[in-house]
Amino acid sequence: MTDARTVFDRHLPDQLPTPQPATAYAPSNIALSKYWGKRDKALNLPLNSSLSISLRDWGSTTRISPSSTDEVWFQDRLLPADDPFADKVLRFANRFRRDQMMPLKIETSNTIPTAAGLASSASGFAALTMALVQAFQLDLPDDTVSMFARLGSGSATRSLWHGFARWERGHANDGTDSFARPLEVRWPAFRIAIIPVDTGPKSHSSRDGMNHTVATSPLFGAWPAQAESDCTAIQNAVQDQNFQTLGQLAEANALAMHATMLAARPALSYLKPESWQVLETLWTARHEGLAAFATMDAGANVKLILEASSAADVKAIFPQSRLIAPFDPL
Amino acid sequence: MTDARTVFDRHLPDQLPTPQPATAYAPSNIALSKYWGKRDKALNLPLNSSLSISLRDWGSTTRISPSSTDEVWFQDRLLPADDPFADKVLRFANRFRRDQMMPLKIETSNTIPTAAGLASSASGFAALTMALVQAFQLDLPDDTVSMFARLGSGSATRSLWHGFARWERGHANDGTDSFARPLEVRWPAFRIAIIPVDTGPKSHSSRDGMNHTVATSPLFGAWPAQAESDCTAIQNAVQDQNFQTLGQLAEANALAMHATMLAARPALSYLKPESWQVLETLWTARHEGLAAFATMDAGANVKLILEASSAADVKAIFPQSRLIAPFDPL
Repeated sequence: MTDARTVFDRHLPDQLPTPQPATAYAPSNIALSKYWGKRDKALNLPLNSSLSISLRDWGSTTRISPSSTDEVWFQDRLLPADDPFADKVLRFANRFRRDQMMPLKIETSNTIPTAAGLASSASGFAALTMALVQAFQLDLPDDTVSMFARLGSGSATRSLWHGFARWERGHANDGTDSFARPLEVRWPAFRIAIIPVDTGPKSHSSRDGMNHTVATSPLFGAWPAQAESDCTAIQNAVQDQNFQTLGQLAEANALAMHATMLAARPALSYLKPESWQVLETLWTARHEGLAAFATMDAGANVKLILEASSAADVKAIFPQSRLIAPFDPL
Repeated sequence: MTDARTVFDRHLPDQLPTPQPATAYAPSNIALSKYWGKRDKALNLPLNSSLSISLRDWGSTTRISPSSTDEVWFQDRLLPADDPFADKVLRFANRFRRDQMMPLKIETSNTIPTAAGLASSASGFAALTMALVQAFQLDLPDDTVSMFARLGSGSATRSLWHGFARWERGHANDGTDSFARPLEVRWPAFRIAIIPVDTGPKSHSSRDGMNHTVATSPLFGAWPAQAESDCTAIQNAVQDQNFQTLGQLAEANALAMHATMLAARPALSYLKPESWQVLETLWTARHEGLAAFATMDAGANVKLILEASSAADVKAIFPQSRLIAPFDPL
């Protein structure tokens, strides 16, 4: 079996150049066709392809500079050496450095509002990967950078770009064909509304929830094929800018993912009663003509997709919502 | 293909005797291992076996008497000829009468509290079947009476008895091996708590919900085999009076059924935000030691299973709950 080290070795020079200061920004992303279930846990290889929209100015910036000793900073605060986040970041930097003594100062900051309750691992690992590639002056194709980001966090593979991106599951055992590419679609009227429900810490990480579902849910078996077919149908709807079809498919795909968790033993329920209340309110409003659809990840928040023409209605129904225009200039 | 008429013909004499006055009571029932999905819609043949507990004094009484003209009474009120309930009852009576002119007065009354929001078709068709069998002085084995009740409403097949009953799915195309039998288990400490959530009319009948799920849910394919294996495991737990195992299995089985609906396209959600709030409260209480588990059917109410020793705790946490002791003397 291939391990992550072998994959990095294949793409990196034996001897890295002296690191240069580098800064990279990556947006967070929300999957419209979900990633749920791994075929290889060590390599973060998914059972199915997925498709996302990036969140523009909600994301992570990582700055790397040479240093006399390894330091990890988060939101302008130096983290203690035993901090779990610092440990994850340095272990990922070691994938590049391997045994070369090149101490780094790594500074990360997020612009994702805390109240939005979105995970920052996607944008964090994407920005870290891009900053490391720059710092070590690696001339790598985007496909390889996306593949590297995947080894930090699965959904990071989709966070290198603005707009829509599709992560192809791939088929190779070493994961060299499992990376994302941006879609050539600009959809200026496309909007995301984040409806915060619960800003407390998650009960289970998405990694644990995924593994528990794959291992115990009697309904999971049907997911990978359905998710793969949804992903292609959702990509077609994005390319056609067919909002109704996209919305129906994205909502059904998200609910099917949550259904696999509900059937896990014991059941896994990231959605809270307040999340269901948001869904009921949405379904009632849609019955009365609102053109908006929901998607939910491994957390209690509900995200809506809509077009600009429905933004005022969504804001009236969900005053607590935060609107994102993914294609607006930065 | 066999139709219902052929099945009745096979078990009834060509010429029925003059009907005698007859009265029968049948309890309602709650499935601990759910019936969800038909392999034959005309004959109400299920895709999987199921297992229920009857609700003692919550049920239906049907009185049949010879009359000069067909009359259907519900809760002491004569129904108009075009009433859908009256139509269903008379069409079922015609299964017995076929073309014989034997006008009947059929009086049905329910003792199920309206606030409990439980369907009465199970107890209603079971009581009607038993009353017709008596009125026509048919000497039929219980298996046949249960099979007849099934042709009125699937879950009625389990409502002929008090206590636990298992409905065997059977394999014959004509459904002659698809009926329920009572389990020889007396569990005096067993309790059901009904937690009313929504007493309004259902958005979709369970029959429609079942058919929509089978037809459109990508996760439904795994249900029949899982439900069959759950049913056997639940029967074993009932026979061992192993409450923890029974509770865990019954709750997981109910959630898996609701998961198949959530993945239907469009999604089907009988559970309301208040239902999820009851579940969250239950899960928190269970984490703190409460021995009670949930089961939910095609409606918003939540039903708990527990033993007598937990009744006071359940009542304190859910003051609105209605407690049933299925094995208490009537």
